[in-house]
Amino acid sequence: MHHSFNILTTTTPSESPEPPLKHEDNRMRILICPSGFKESLDTHVVADCIEEGVRRIVPDAVIKKVPLFDGGEGFAKALITSTGGTLRDITITGPVNQPVASQYGLLGDNGPKTAVIDMAAAAGLRLVPKDLRDPTVTTTYGVGELLFAALEEGVERILVGCGDSGTSDGGAGMLQALGARLLDKHGHELPLAQGGKSLSTLADIDRTHLHPRLREVEIEVACNFKNVLCGPKGVARVYGPQKGATPAQVEMLAAALDTYGLIVSRKLGQTVSSLPGSGASGGLGAGLLLLGAKLRPRYEAITEYFGINDDLFRDNHHLVFTAEGKIDAQTTQGKIPAEIAVRAKKHGLPVIALAGTVGDDANANYGAGIDAYTSIMQGPMTLEDAMEAAERLLRDSAETAMRMVMLGKSLNADIHTTASAPVPVPVPAPAAAAAAGAGMTKTKAYKKVFPSLSMFTFVCVSFLWLAALYTSHDPSCISLK
Amino acid sequence: MHHSFNILTTTTPSESPEPPLKHEDNRMRILICPSGFKESLDTHVVADCIEEGVRRIVPDAVIKKVPLFDGGEGFAKALITSTGGTLRDITITGPVNQPVASQYGLLGDNGPKTAVIDMAAAAGLRLVPKDLRDPTVTTTYGVGELLFAALEEGVERILVGCGDSGTSDGGAGMLQALGARLLDKHGHELPLAQGGKSLSTLADIDRTHLHPRLREVEIEVACNFKNVLCGPKGVARVYGPQKGATPAQVEMLAAALDTYGLIVSRKLGQTVSSLPGSGASGGLGAGLLLLGAKLRPRYEAITEYFGINDDLFRDNHHLVFTAEGKIDAQTTQGKIPAEIAVRAKKHGLPVIALAGTVGDDANANYGAGIDAYTSIMQGPMTLEDAMEAAERLLRDSAETAMRMVMLGKSLNADIHTTASAPVPVPVPAPAAAAAAGAGMTKTKAYKKVFPSLSMFTFVCVSFLWLAALYTSHDPSCISLK
Repeated sequence: MHHSFNILTTTTPSESPEPPLKHEDNRMRILICPSGFKESLDTHVVADCIEEGVRRIVPDAVIKKVPLFDGGEGFAKALITSTGGTLRDITITGPVNQPVASQYGLLGDNGPKTAVIDMAAAAGLRLVPKDLRDPTVTTTYGVGELLFAALEEGVERILVGCGDSGTSDGGAGMLQALGARLLDKHGHELPLAQGGKSLSTLADIDRTHLHPRLREVEIEVACNFKNVLCGPKGVARVYGPQKGATPAQVEMLAAALDTYGLIVSRKLGQTVSSLPGSGASGGLGAGLLLLGAKLRPRYEAITEYFGINDDLFRDNHHLVFTAEGKIDAQTTQGKIPAEIAVRAKKHGLPVIALAGTVGDDANANYGAGIDAYTSIMQGPMTLEDAMEAAERLLRDSAETAMRMVMLGKSLNADIHTTASAPVPVPVPAPAAAAAAGAGMTKTKAYKKVFPSLSMFTFVCVSFLWLAALYTSHDPSCISLK
Repeated sequence: MHHSFNILTTTTPSESPEPPLKHEDNRMRILICPSGFKESLDTHVVADCIEEGVRRIVPDAVIKKVPLFDGGEGFAKALITSTGGTLRDITITGPVNQPVASQYGLLGDNGPKTAVIDMAAAAGLRLVPKDLRDPTVTTTYGVGELLFAALEEGVERILVGCGDSGTSDGGAGMLQALGARLLDKHGHELPLAQGGKSLSTLADIDRTHLHPRLREVEIEVACNFKNVLCGPKGVARVYGPQKGATPAQVEMLAAALDTYGLIVSRKLGQTVSSLPGSGASGGLGAGLLLLGAKLRPRYEAITEYFGINDDLFRDNHHLVFTAEGKIDAQTTQGKIPAEIAVRAKKHGLPVIALAGTVGDDANANYGAGIDAYTSIMQGPMTLEDAMEAAERLLRDSAETAMRMVMLGKSLNADIHTTASAPVPVPVPAPAAAAAAGAGMTKTKAYKKVFPSLSMFTFVCVSFLWLAALYTSHDPSCISLK
C-alpha cells in the first residue's frame, strides 16, 4: 500500500489529546463509515451527524469516523484536501458540448507526481441539463481534456474516479480528445464528441496519434467492478434509463456499445465487453483500458488512497454505522454501505445503515451483511424539505437507532429466539455465519459457560484442600459411607 | 371493574388452539398496544402490521395484541362490535348546523342498558368542512341530540367518548338540545347552537327544563384529564388554532369560556374552570358536569370498558410496541403511546413507538417512558402516498425496529456504557427509575450477581459436608493450621 493519507479521526468525548486506545477497556466501540448524501450532505458531515446522534445515548463511546467517497463527484477534491495538494482550474468541453469550468488535482504527498480526476467533473450527470438528458449523444470529450492537461503538466501517475456519469459513449470522446481517431468502415474519421450513438458505424480505432506521454504514465481507475460494457447487465441497459434514455434509445445504445466493445477487444487482443469495470461511467472503463489504464475495484482503490484498510474492522469494534443518500437493490452492486457491510461481517460486526430514502428491494442488502437500515425521514415531506433538514434528521435517526440497540442490549440474554432468515436472498458465506450467530455472539456463548467452569474449578480445589486436611488425620476414611 | 369485554388476542405462530402460556419458557414475549392512525389505519390493522413485522425477525415470539381506542372517532363502534351490541342511526345537527347522519350504540352485554356515544360522531373536526373551520361558531348541539335519543330509548347508563372534536362551545349547544336555557343578563335566551363566541354574553343557565331522565341516568365521560376549560393551558389556547381559530379568535374564545366557566362553577357550587377534563372536546366536559356526568381519565375508563387492566404489563413481557399517527409533544398529554409507556415503565418494560409522523418536540416522550420512537416513512413522500402505503410501511418499520433490538441484544452485555439522560425533560418518578436502569434491567443486574451467589452456596455446602465428614473422626481439628 503506497501513497496513503490518513484522514481517519477517532474521537473521545474529552477535548484533551487522544489517549491511547485501550481495547481491553469495556467502553462501546463504534465505527462510522458513511458515504456522502448526493447533492445534500458531504460524507464528513454525515459522519459527524451520526456521531452526534450516537453520543446522545452513549456519551462515552469510543467512536472512529471513516468518511468514505465513492469515486464520483467530489472524490478528487477530497483526496487533494487530505494530502494538502493543489487544484487546477481548467475550462473543458462538457457532456453536451458546452464549455464547463472544471478542475483536476495534484496530490500533495511525496510520491511520484500524481494527478487525480473525477470523471464527473467533466462528464457528470449534474452537468447535463435535465431537458438534454440523452445518453446516446453526451460525450466524455472533457475527460480526455482533463487527462491531456495532466499529461502536459508532466505527471507520472493519474488516478481517475468513476461514478455519477451522465454519458454512455464508452469513453470514445475521451479517446478523441487525446488524439485517437475513430474510423468508419470507409476509413473516414467520425466527427468529434458525438456520443455513444455514433459508435454504431465504428470500424476501427487509430491510436497512432495518442498523446505520447500516455506511454510513460501510470493510470489507475477506481471503478465499480459490477459494471460491464455489454450484455443484459451492460451499462446501456442498467444505467441508460436513469441517464434519460428511452427504451428504444437504450437498445440502440446497447447495439452501438456492442460494436465498440468488439473493436476495443480486437485492439487489445482481449475480450473487454464483460470485463469488470469495462462498463464503469457509461463504458469509460473500456476506453481507459485502450489507454493502458489499470482498472481497480472502486472501494479497494479509494480506501487505499485514503489510507484505510480492512484492519479497520479488526479493531475490536462492537457496531458499525454506514449511510448513503439512497439504499436500494443497487446498493448491493458495489455501493459503499454494502462494501462496508461485507467487510464488517467478515469480522462478525453488526451493521446499521441510515439512508435518506429506502428504495425498491432494499432488503437485498440484508444478504450483503447490513443488519438493519432505516430512512431518516420523520414524516411525509418533500425532497426539498428533507434536504434542507438533512443534518437534523440524520442526527435524530442515529440517536433513534442507538436507542433501539441499547434497548435490545438491556434485554435479558436468556430470552430465546429462533434464528430467522427473513429475506430470501443469497447470503455470502461470511454474512451467513454472522447471521447464524445473531441471537448470541460467540463471546456471549462463552461467557454463559464460563461461570459454571470457574465455579467447578473452585469447588474441586476446595474439595481437594479439605480432603488433604482430612487425610492428614485418617487416610483410610476418604470414602462415602 | 364491571362491564368488561375481552378483545385481547394472544397469538403464537401455530394455527392450533393456543397453548397455555408458560411464562417460565424463555421465548420473547412482546406486547403490542397501538392506537389507530387517524384517517388511515384502524387500530386492529396497526396491531396486525406490527405483529407481522416483528415475526419476520422473531418468528416464535409470544405476542399479545391489545389494539386501543382513545375515545375519539370510532370508539362507540369498536365497543359495540366487541360486545355484540347494536348501532342506532339518527340524523342530528352537525357542528356547522348542517344535517349529519350519525350513530350511537347500545352495548350488547348483560349489564344495565347502556348507550355509548362518540362526541366526534356529532361534532367531530371531520364534520367541519375545511373552509368553515372556526371554533368560535361550531356547536355541540348534535351531541345533545344523541344524548336525548338515548334518554328517550330508556337507557340507564351512557358512556361518552371525547376526542377529535371540531367545537369549542363548552358543551353549550349540547345543553340547549337537552332543554337548558342559556340566558343573558337581561334574562333573554341566547339563540340555539351559536358556538363558543355567543357565551360572552352569558349570565345564567336555566336547567329547569332539562330532560327529566337525566336525573335517573348515570353518565360517564372518557376524556383527556390534561384538558382544562380556562387559563393559559385552557382549551381555546391549546386546541383553538388546530381547529381553525386565528390568534384573535383564540383570545375571544378564551374570554367567552372564562365567562361560561364562572357560571357553570356557580351553578355547581364548585370551580370547574381548572378541573381535569373540563376542557375535554372544546369544553364539552364542563357542560357534561352540569348534567351530573362523571368525568373519568380517558385511558383508565376505556381500558376498563374493553376489559384491559394494568395486569397486562405485569405479564412477564420483555418489550412493548405502541403506535400512533403522530408522535409529538402533545402525545405526552394523555395520548395512548404515553399512557402505555408510563404504565409499562412501572414494570420496567422497554417501549418502542412507531408513528406516521414524528412531530415537534417529540423528545418530550422520552420523559414519559418511550425509549425510542421512529417514523415509518421510507423517504420523502406526500401524505397521500404515505397513507396509501401505510400498512407496508408499518410492517417494514416494525421489522426494522426489531432488527435493531435484536442487534443490540446480541451485543456483549459486558460492554460498559454510561447512563445518559439525553433529553432535558421532566421525568416522572417511575419513568426516571426505569431510565436509570436503561443500561441494564434489574433482572439482568440480578442475574449477574446470581451465579456468584449460587457458587458461594455450593461451596459452603461442600465445605460443611466435608467438615462434617472430618469432624466425625476428629472434632478437635476443625481449624486452619
